[in-house]
Order: sequence, then structure tokens, then C-alpha cells
Amino acid sequence: MNVISNTQTMTVSPTVPFHHTFPLDAWRICEPGYDVNTNYLSESLFALGNGTIGLRGTHEESYLGPEGSSQEGNYLNGFYESEPITYPENAYGLARNNHFMLNLPNGKGMELWLADEKFNLANGRIINYQRQLDFRTGILSRTVQWESPQGRQVEVVSERLVSFTDRHLYAIRYRVTAINFSASLRLVSTLNANVSNLQTADDPRVGSKITAPPLQVLAQQNKPDFLGFEHKTLHSQFHVVSSIAHTTNDWVADELVGGDDEQDQHQTQVLARHFIADIEQGHSVTLCKFGCYFSSRDYPAKELMLLSADYLSRARQQGFDHFAERQREYLQAFWQQADVEIAGDLALQQGIHFNQFHLLQSVGRDGQTNIAAKGLSGEGYEGHYFWDTEIYILPFFLYSKPEIARTLLDYRYLGLQQARQRAREMGHKQGALYPWRTIGGEECSAYFPAGSAQYHINADIAYAVKQYLEARDDQEFLLNCAAEMVWETARIWLDLGHFSGTTPEVFRINEVTGPDEYTALVNNNYYTNAMAKLHMLFALTLVEKLRRDHNEDYRRIIDKIMLTEAEISAWKSAAHSMLLPYDKALQIHAQDDSFLTKKIWDFANTPDEQYPLLLHFHPLVIYRHQVCKQADLLLAMLLLPDQFTLEEKRRNFDYYEKITTHDSSLSSCIFSIIAAEIGDHEKAYRYFMETARLDLDDTHHNTKHGIHTAAMAGTWMCISYGFGGMRIINGQLHFSPTLPRQWQHYQFQININHATLNIRIDSEATEYRLTAGSELKFFHRQQIVTLNQQEKNHRILNRITDYE
Amino acid sequence: MNVISNTQTMTVSPTVPFHHTFPLDAWRICEPGYDVNTNYLSESLFALGNGTIGLRGTHEESYLGPEGSSQEGNYLNGFYESEPITYPENAYGLARNNHFMLNLPNGKGMELWLADEKFNLANGRIINYQRQLDFRTGILSRTVQWESPQGRQVEVVSERLVSFTDRHLYAIRYRVTAINFSASLRLVSTLNANVSNLQTADDPRVGSKITAPPLQVLAQQNKPDFLGFEHKTLHSQFHVVSSIAHTTNDWVADELVGGDDEQDQHQTQVLARHFIADIEQGHSVTLCKFGCYFSSRDYPAKELMLLSADYLSRARQQGFDHFAERQREYLQAFWQQADVEIAGDLALQQGIHFNQFHLLQSVGRDGQTNIAAKGLSGEGYEGHYFWDTEIYILPFFLYSKPEIARTLLDYRYLGLQQARQRAREMGHKQGALYPWRTIGGEECSAYFPAGSAQYHINADIAYAVKQYLEARDDQEFLLNCAAEMVWETARIWLDLGHFSGTTPEVFRINEVTGPDEYTALVNNNYYTNAMAKLHMLFALTLVEKLRRDHNEDYRRIIDKIMLTEAEISAWKSAAHSMLLPYDKALQIHAQDDSFLTKKIWDFANTPDEQYPLLLHFHPLVIYRHQVCKQADLLLAMLLLPDQFTLEEKRRNFDYYEKITTHDSSLSSCIFSIIAAEIGDHEKAYRYFMETARLDLDDTHHNTKHGIHTAAMAGTWMCISYGFGGMRIINGQLHFSPTLPRQWQHYQFQININHATLNIRIDSEATEYRLTAGSELKFFHRQQIVTLNQQEKNHRILNRITDYE
Repeated sequence: MNVISNTQTMTVSPTVPFHHTFPLDAWRICEPGYDVNTNYLSESLFALGNGTIGLRGTHEESYLGPEGSSQEGNYLNGFYESEPITYPENAYGLARNNHFMLNLPNGKGMELWLADEKFNLANGRIINYQRQLDFRTGILSRTVQWESPQGRQVEVVSERLVSFTDRHLYAIRYRVTAINFSASLRLVSTLNANVSNLQTADDPRVGSKITAPPLQVLAQQNKPDFLGFEHKTLHSQFHVVSSIAHTTNDWVADELVGGDDEQDQHQTQVLARHFIADIEQGHSVTLCKFGCYFSSRDYPAKELMLLSADYLSRARQQGFDHFAERQREYLQAFWQQADVEIAGDLALQQGIHFNQFHLLQSVGRDGQTNIAAKGLSGEGYEGHYFWDTEIYILPFFLYSKPEIARTLLDYRYLGLQQARQRAREMGHKQGALYPWRTIGGEECSAYFPAGSAQYHINADIAYAVKQYLEARDDQEFLLNCAAEMVWETARIWLDLGHFSGTTPEVFRINEVTGPDEYTALVNNNYYTNAMAKLHMLFALTLVEKLRRDHNEDYRRIIDKIMLTEAEISAWKSAAHSMLLPYDKALQIHAQDDSFLTKKIWDFANTPDEQYPLLLHFHPLVIYRHQVCKQADLLLAMLLLPDQFTLEEKRRNFDYYEKITTHDSSLSSCIFSIIAAEIGDHEKAYRYFMETARLDLDDTHHNTKHGIHTAAMAGTWMCISYGFGGMRIINGQLHFSPTLPRQWQHYQFQININHATLNIRIDSEATEYRLTAGSELKFFHRQQIVTLNQQEKNHRILNRITDYE
Repeated sequence: MNVISNTQTMTVSPTVPFHHTFPLDAWRICEPGYDVNTNYLSESLFALGNGTIGLRGTHEESYLGPEGSSQEGNYLNGFYESEPITYPENAYGLARNNHFMLNLPNGKGMELWLADEKFNLANGRIINYQRQLDFRTGILSRTVQWESPQGRQVEVVSERLVSFTDRHLYAIRYRVTAINFSASLRLVSTLNANVSNLQTADDPRVGSKITAPPLQVLAQQNKPDFLGFEHKTLHSQFHVVSSIAHTTNDWVADELVGGDDEQDQHQTQVLARHFIADIEQGHSVTLCKFGCYFSSRDYPAKELMLLSADYLSRARQQGFDHFAERQREYLQAFWQQADVEIAGDLALQQGIHFNQFHLLQSVGRDGQTNIAAKGLSGEGYEGHYFWDTEIYILPFFLYSKPEIARTLLDYRYLGLQQARQRAREMGHKQGALYPWRTIGGEECSAYFPAGSAQYHINADIAYAVKQYLEARDDQEFLLNCAAEMVWETARIWLDLGHFSGTTPEVFRINEVTGPDEYTALVNNNYYTNAMAKLHMLFALTLVEKLRRDHNEDYRRIIDKIMLTEAEISAWKSAAHSMLLPYDKALQIHAQDDSFLTKKIWDFANTPDEQYPLLLHFHPLVIYRHQVCKQADLLLAMLLLPDQFTLEEKRRNFDYYEKITTHDSSLSSCIFSIIAAEIGDHEKAYRYFMETARLDLDDTHHNTKHGIHTAAMAGTWMCISYGFGGMRIINGQLHFSPTLPRQWQHYQFQININHATLNIRIDSEATEYRLTAGSELKFFHRQQIVTLNQQEKNHRILNRITDYE
């Protein structure tokens, strides 16, 4: 039987849903006990990151649990190995190389010996255990009281941070207290290059089988105050230096076993520093460890080792508390900008804070990196960046930390030349086509029907650019990046689609895949066509704007890309005659030309264990039925809100909801938002619940491979776009808030055009407060509201119908 | 640039088209000189086979030409290695294992030494060279006069046959004549296991990259009169014994260097026998070599070596002339049954004889093997069997050697259980789904959009069964195989398709690929739907027939497969309400629901070097255009002739001809037949030309990887169905002959219902002759003709309009 087995997932996933064992807390997640059954999952939930570095929440000490219940992981955003893709049956133009986020040497390791006994959670007796990740301090801390087999009781407190303010740095403070004994202690701190990426070929959501030896050792340094490896990747030819250093007043370095001691055993893949301390009962000893990663993606290869040594030297001088304090300050500012408050539901409050915190941890912000589907918390989807960034994640950053939104778009501009090259490979003589999935900018999709066929990626990026420019007056971006990027990507539609030649003229786009991956290679996918239309109209708007206001820049750009008047005029015709499928009999919009002619999936005879369908049915079976993995037409209704009447939205929602499995984590948030819009508050709330704690409750059974960044950001959209009813229509900001009956109140914030607006909804009224900036105009339903220095607050009583 | 390069093909293909260098001859192909540029191609053209064994036309002596200009190949039909297919992005239900025809140890090798000089075509001077393959003797013979660098002139005559009458046997007679010298000669005859399959991953028409070590040595025997290897395959676990033996009166075995002499050099992968002879000027010495292959696909593994030794012992006694004589007799009988004569065009006459001969060489006839897309002449398509058998090749055998047609269908019946298993993997709870491509019966298609999605394979097989039963009253086959196979395969349509639920009811089949591989994953492909309709109606006919005439068998079969009355009745409804797309505006049948809405390919701006399109454009580019690789709707017009009016056929032909590239070798023959039917005699002739000499002229530039069996059989259909206008309509045989103006006359033969009919058409009349059997009725146009023992001949004068 050729069955993709999901068994492993099932055996190591928790038997009790996690939200029953995690105490509810607005600002922390807290693990009250040590459990090998939830260990793999916890490694993702307790992962730390700062957009550059990501460390999975593995313990410092060697893990001795069952095989398949842990995956060590230390990542550097944008640092990838590349490997040729081998197709069992080849075709022209298929993606040639895969990129995958590499697992780097692990610098977190600590081995503690109490005399001749090794401290390990899998042996002895755990008297007390608590691990917590605090969203306001940004510190992962673990307190363990443990009794050794010989009866020695010890308390180990470890604190760990990945610095938001020093992007190459992570730090660990490790304190040992002898509770009931006096003895000689030994602490071995390691930098372990004996790591490998997750090997799994069956579940397409994890990734391909990686066969190449990923890292080659080039150099190593083993000095008293600095241990470092320099490695190089085989194919992508990147260099990386991984290094650690220590400070302590309590421990003495054991120079006798320093150096090469452990290296025989590990084939020189482990650098280690040994420390010893004689401890009296009741006393404590502390060690601080600092680690950093520097790669040739950022700096010249030959400087990496020196840079690392200097960096850690400075870190040692500044000390753990310094970085902990700066971490706290950074997060204080972040929550001030971004905090979403939900009063009356601690589980959801915890969920949304958790999600916001992980988004902040995951997002690249240097213009060369982006945010992966699984952030920096695991190897699911191989660390690839998708359209998730533009359509699901960008809004959160745009309205909370707009400078990060800009860097995400800079990343796309950086990839424009590769997108041009890809367009040529795909037969387009002009324009640029962005990759469906990538790290380094090259198309990495190895299954084109659900990959390269998703041409909507181009429109998604243009949509994000439009959204960004509507929220921020960023002329530099407009003139140096946006116009060129929007025009180059818009050109693709003219070659991809075609005019029917009939009267009236119709513009068709054949053979694409829309967002719904349970339907592939269709004609006139509504989402794609509607987004392409918007894209071309936006391209025209930019043409007009630049011609009028920045004619010199306009000339420069169109000369560079050789854009012709004929193309510009074709955008107009194509947009105006775009085919947007509608079924008159059902009075709904059709997902594509043929979708509604297909057989409806037999949900009644599909048992729970056959979900997700992709793990139990051949693609042909799925494709030939009316069944959706995720929001597709409904996503168009969110992004293009003014193109549907409320009645159409209701009918579409009712139709597509019945046939959607939500097997994609991108689905529930969109359903929640549309449910809120059409007034189905119960469903809006239920879908929101599914999204808000998707990772905390591991509802998709694969959070162990990494958290779901798009769903996390979807949570934020559920609040702002869903319950808050926020939309930008014709450049105007609109709200239409409702309050779920389960909550007392909620509030969220929008940073737009250099102003910050706080929106608070309770059972009586909606209150708008201008907390920064000089003026802001927006609509509350049909009513215009202006806030400025004179009137910073505005309170509008609720209509009864909104809160039934 | 990710470009599949076709460069290699171009550099080693002949600069002068081959038909200019091959003399025209009705019964032979003759190579007048030795040319490394055409060597690779000639190896396919001069390949020998008997349906069991296939030997590429490599020379006996080591080949010393440039790399990439030769591929040694020795094959055993149905003997394959299996290898897991690795997908870069996995999905449920994809084919799990590939099968590929293995390259077996080469027993043809001969190394000749004239004193210290080695005879080799790449050195010295070729005084005279001629190689020919004779279709009436079945012997490949080569005569070379050669002068060594030191001036020794020698004539080497080698004759080779693969016995049609002794299916495990091949034989070589090797005669050496000293023209201008006397010396001691040495002849080393080898059995070389140092072979490997063709390695190429880029061109999908060749195959996948094979990575496993294919053959493991289990045993070897090295006796004076018998040399043999026993090998085993790693995955498929088949055993094969390859062996050789010799007879000679002229040579003396050199026992001093017998045995293990050469084995160090070749790592014991070569068994060799050394012979020496002192030769006087003007004298000749001859050696006969016999070789055989026996595998565990046919016999118990432990008996293979002994069987081989006995077999070769007998062969040595009988001698080369014995087998040559039997070969000639066999072919005499074959040509008597099968010969197609074309008077007035020697090139075509040669082409069609060449094709018929290669079909006979390629076809498996033991019920366990079939006929590969490239026969046994090369490794293109990895030796896989496709629908080519049923739709293109079966008619030739059915009407020429019907006992072979039966064995081809037996092969499918043998695979019925695997087809049931495959149906389960594809989500069908009932029925059987045949693999798109396979050797051993398991689905081997690694790219499902142009593989497993071609559900029409089921209908193709049912069609072949129907055709077979119409031409032969084979009750045993009907009751033991046909009914069960037709019913099990017909069940798939009910689950694959669905009723629309509208009034009137329409039966739709979504998400399949039709014959045209430049269009994939479409809804209501005309060919598929029409063939499925015919399939279900045929299943009903068989239900009715068995109920009425063989009720006991009927009960037995429906009990075995648990066929219900509801299913039988659903076949009727589905067939009667089958959707068959038609475009009212264009007044043509649509290839599928959306085909005609696509953009027409820009042929005007596609230079010649961008064909075949599949090597120069991404599948998405091809799929979204109106462009056909091959006949699709037109094939339906051939197979279901009564479902179209002549006017419809004309309009369809005109429309689809303009957008068909014929990048598939399956295309031109169908276009020729339909062109003949609609009266376009020029096009009928031109398309026939393209098909008839497709391999001889290497028009697809890949005959080096093997001859194209479907196109070869298509040639025969062009004569019978095309120019002869033969059709079976409602069980009645029809002819409607025309004569291309380029010919004086042509004739062909049909074996049907134990009668043989010779049809001869010249410029005045068509003459029908009953050459075997007691009676035959058929139609000449609308006129019924009855031939019997009283009136064996019937001559009908031509209408003037048929030969304009």
C-alpha cells in the first residue's frame, strides 16, 4: 500500500489538548511539567527568535527522550543550502534548485555533572519543573528542582534570550544551586556542529528529502574566551561562523580538559569548554553564555571569525542583564504599538499575544530576508517564504511596525531581477514573475500545479505594495522600488491572459491555480482574475501619478524596463474586460470557470481520520470534486470588499463554507472575518477561536515542525478586519465594529500615515483615540470621524443590531 | 538557465537525411558505409528481436567511436528492475515504483586479432563495407573488407539472427578471410556483464535517471562448451541466466588463456573464450556462436543455468543454417499473411515492410509480456507498455496474426488484480484502473497530469477487447477474460464521473487528460467521454449476451466481482446522458469543455528549433494554449466513425489540423486516415509519408533511443483504415478504398473470423479475393459483397471521384 503515513505525528502529539495543561495567562506561556509526549511540540512553542536568529526551544542538556520526539534546531534567516531538484519525469522550465533553511551548529548545549552524576531530565526525579516564555521580557526561563539517583538535590535555573536589539546575539544564564549536598560540580558548555536537517519525504508540508552533506568545516577556534566554527555550504557557497563565549565569577575553567578533549568522540564536530566549581550546600553558582552567528550573506566571508570574536567580547563586557534590560525595553515599545487586548477571554488573549510575539520573533527586517511559513521555529516547508507574507502577515506589521513592512517589500524588490529571469523561463518575453516559494529568490516549487501555477503571487505582491503606499506616504519607496516592481509584474498578465476576440471583449486567464490548493490548473480563477484586474488598474494609477508628479522618475523607469504605451493601454483594456465568473442560477460567484460543474465532495462519508484530505487522497480525486482546502473566493471578498454586495457575500459564504475543509491553516481566519462582515457573529467567533490558538492547541497536529506565521497574523486580521470591520476602500479607512458577546471589551491599534489610532469596543460604544500623530480621518460605518490635536477622542454608541 | 538541452541529439544525428544514403529496396535496409555520425541511429534500425529477446544493432567488435554515439543494448521482454520513485514534493497515491527494461549481459562480442593487430572499424582503412537487414531471411549481415595499419587485408562477414522459432536463442556466424596475408589469428568471443542502462534524466521521452546497481552476480560457469552468468536484480528479485556457446571446425580453442584471463581487467564481469587459427592467404575460417537468455519470469530460478546449457547444446548440434532456414520459413509465412504491397513508391514500400518487420520483432506473445513503445530496440520510455498497444498496434496483429492479438489482451487480463489495487489507491471503491505505463503491471507514471490522469486507458483496453471479439469468435476469451475485464474497468466511470442533477440529466467526467498531452487535467475530454460511453454500452452488451447465452458464466463472474443491477443500470444512464462537447458557433466538436476558450498558440512566431514544444516550453505555457501534440478528437473520429457526419469530420479536421504540432509520433497516422476519409488525398498521402518512414528517416530525431512501434503500426492503419477505408461499424466490415495518385496499385490483407481477404486497389478497380476461409461478407461503400468458395474474387470498378 502506497500510503503516506501520518502515524508518527499522531503518536507523539499530546493526548490531552495543550490548552488544558498550559495555564491561561495573558502574557506568558507556561509549561508546568516535563513530558516527552509534548516535548517536540514545546520546542516549537518555546522557540526564540529575533528575525535573524531562531533557536528551537530544546533544553540545554542532551535530550534523552524517544527517537522522533525532539528536533534540535538553530537557524539563521535567509541562510540556506541549495540542492538540485531531481524529477522522476522531467519537463522544461521546472524549478531546478531547492533552497532549505539550514540547521546550524547548536551553541545552547550545557552538560552539568554533580560529582559523578550527570544532570538529566530523563533520569532521577523531577521535584519541581516550570518553564515559561514571557512576552514582555522576551526571556525563556526554566526552573527545575531535581534529585539525582544518588539523592543529590539540585536546582537549575536557566534563562535564555535571543536579542531583539543585537540581532546576531543569543545569551543564556545558567544558575545551579546545591539544595542538600556539597560537591564538586562540572559544567561543560558546548558548540555542537554535529547537526542535520529533519529527514522526511512523505508529508509534503514538511519538505523534501535532503541528501547533501550540508556544512563543511573550514576553520575552528578554541580559545579560553572564544570558541568558534567556520563552515561553508556545498552548493550555495555561503560561509557562517557560529561561536560562543562565557562569563562567570563562580566557575573556574578546567584548562586540563579544555581544547580537544571531547573532539575524538564527536569527530571534531564539538567545541567544548569545561568549568568546575566546588559548591557548598545551599549555595549557587552561575555561568553566562553568549553565542552569535555571522554569515557571508551579511559580511565578507574572511571577516566573519574576527567579527564574531569582537562581538562576543563586547557582549561579555555588557553582560546578561544588559541584554535582558534592552530586551524588555524593546518589547515594551512593541506592545505599546501593537497590543491587542481582549477582556473576558483569557485563552484568546493568551493566543493573540503568543501569536504577535512569535510574529515579531520570526520576521526578517533587513530587506534581504523575509518571514517563513514556519518562522524560525522549525523546518516545516523548508523555511520557505510564500505569499503568506504579503496577504496574511504584512497587514499586522504595516499597521503595528510599518518599518518592518517596508523591509518585507524591499526583499521582493531585491528579487526583481530573479523574477525577470523566471518570467523568461516561463516563456514570458517581458515582465517579472515572482517565485511561489523560495528563500534566495529562485523558484523552489517542485510541484508546479500547486506552485508555479499560482500566478496570483504577482498580484499579491502588488496588492501589498498598494496597501503599503495607502498607509504610508513613502515617496522614496514609490520611486525607487514600487513603480518598477508593480509594472514589471503587471506585464505578465498581458501574456498570461488573452482577449477572447468576441463582442463584448472578454479577458481570460487560463491554466492557473488560485489560493485553494484542492483545485488546480483551472481557467479564470475568480481570485486570480480579480486580483490581476486590481493589479493592472493599480499599475495604471502609478503610471498616471508618476507622469503627473514625478515625470523624470517616470521616464527613467519606463526607459529602464522598456515599457510601452501599448502595454499601458492594454492594461486598461484587460482590466476592464476581465472575466469574473458568476453563476446566475446559484447567484454566487464561481471559484473558476468549471468549479461549480464538479461533483460535491462526499463529506458525509469521509471519516475524521481522512483529514487532511491531502494525506489520504490522490490529487486527481481532490481536484475533480468541489472541495476547498482554504478560502479562495472568500479571500477575494476580503481583499476587494467593494466588488461584492453584502447579499452576494452572504450567499458566497454560505456556499463555500459547506465545501471547505480548512485543511490549510490559512483558511479559518478569512472565514472569521467574512462571517463577522455578514453578521454571523457565532461563526466569526468560532473561526477566530480556531485561528487564535491554532499552534497553542496544535489543532493541525504539525506545530512540532514549526509555528504557523500566516495563521498567527490572521488572528490579528480577525480582530481588526473581522470584529473591527476595518477596510481601506478607495484609500479611505473604514471601521464597522462588532463585539462578540463572549467578551467585555477589546481594543487594538492602527499605525497609519504616521498617526496611531486606538480602537476600543465595549458593549456600549466604540471609542477612537488618536495616541500619536496630528490628525486622522476615517469612517465609522457611513459616518466620517476626524481626530486631531483638538479632539483626540471620539466615542460612538453602538447600534443594537451589531451585538445581537 | 534551466534549459533541457537537445544539443546532443542534434550533433550525433545525421546531417544528410538517412533515406538519401540508404538505398531503396522493398525487402531490406542496407547501410553502404560505416559512419560514426549515424552509428547510434543504425543500432536501433538494425536491431534484431523476436518478441522475447532484443539485441541492438551494435557491432560485434568493441565500439571505439565518440562518447554518446553508441548504446550497447540486449534486452529480454518483461524482464525489468523496479526502483522506488522519489518525488521532490510528495502526494498521496502517486506511483511508488518505476519499472525499467534492464540492459542484460552482451553475448555478441567478438574481438579479432590479425597477429598483433586488432581488427576495428575505427582504425585502419575500410575498403568495403556493407550491412543489411533482410526482412525475408530475418538475418542481419555485415561484410567488411579492411586493411590494417600494417597493410593486412581481411574480409569479415558476420551474420546474426534472433530466432523467431526458438524464442530464447540468438546466433552469430563470423567468417574471416585473409585477403593478402598469412598469419596466426586470434578470435576472442565474450559474454560481457559490464553493462548499464542509458543514463539521462533530461528528456522525458527517454526516461528517468536510474541510480541502483541493476544486476548482482550470483553464479558463473566457464566451461569449454558453455559460458554463463546468473544474475539477480536487486528490487524486482528476478533471476536471469545469460550464456553463450560455440561451434567451429576452423578454430582451435586456446585453453591457455581460457577461463579467467580477461577477468582481472573487467573485474570478473566478462567471460571469454579464446580461439586461434593459422590462416593462409585466400583462405577463410568460420566460428558460430549461440547465445540465450532464460529468466525466472518464465522458469524456476534454480533451473535456469541447466536449461541454458541444454538449450545451447541442442543449438550447437542443430547449427546456424538450421535456424537460418527456420527463420526464413517463419518469415515466409508471416509475409504471406501480412504483406502490404505498394507499387510505384519504393521508399514507402521499404518503409512499410521495415515497420511490419520491426513490429513482429518487438511484440511479446506469451501472454505475460506486451509490446513496448520502443519495442526491444532501445531504452526510450524505459521499455514501458502504454495504450499504444491497444489503440495503435493491436489492429495490425489482430488482422495479420490474430493469435498474437489474443496474447496482448491476455497480458491485460493477467494485470487485472493489480488494476483493482490501483483503483483502490486512486480512491475508487470498486472496479479496476489500468496503469498508464508499466512493465510488470504496476502504475509507473511519475507525472500524473500526463500519466495516471489519462483514464481513457480503461476504455482503450475495452475497445481493443471489443475489436478483438468482433474479428474473432473466441468464446473462451469472452467467458474467461473479456467480460470480467470489461465490467471491472467500466465500473470506474461511474465513480470518476457524475450526473449533473439537471434536466436533462448530463453525465460529466472531470479532471482527466485525453490523448493529447499538450492539454492536461480537463473536464469532459471528448475522446474520454465518448470512449467511456462506448465502453459502458459494450459492458451492457456483454451483460445481455452472457445473461442470454451463458447464464452460468454470467452468474459466476458477477458473483466474483459483486457487480450489482444498480451498477448495470447506471452504465445505461451514464452512457445515454454522456456529455460530448460541441461548439455551436464553430460547428465543431470541442476537445474538452474549455479547450476552445484558450488562446491559440502563436505558430507564426515559433521557430522550427523550438519543436518539439515540450523541450522548449514549461507545461503551463503549453497547457494554456490551443495547441495539440497529437490527434485527440480526430482519434475519436477514427475509433467511433459513426458518431460524426462527414461534414463534421471535415470541419473538425480543418480546425484541429491547424493547431496540431505532431510532436508525438502517434499523430500523423491518424491525420492521414481522417484526411483519406474526408477526401483530402494529398494530405492523406503526406501524413502517411511522415509516418511510414518516421524511423528510417529519423524525423523525430530520437530513433537512436529505439524505434516507434505505435507509429509503425499506424502505417498499417493508414493503408487499411486510411486508403482502404476499412471500418467495423455495428459489427460489419466496410471498405471505401481510394488510390493515391502517386501509386500504380497497392494491396493488403485482412484475417477476420478465420478467413483471409486480400484487397488490391489499382487505378481501375478494387479487387477482393478470399484467400483462406469459407465465406466472408462485407461492404464496399454501400454495396454488400459476399465471397465464398463459389465466388472467391470480386472486382469493382472505381468511381472517378475517388481518385482525383
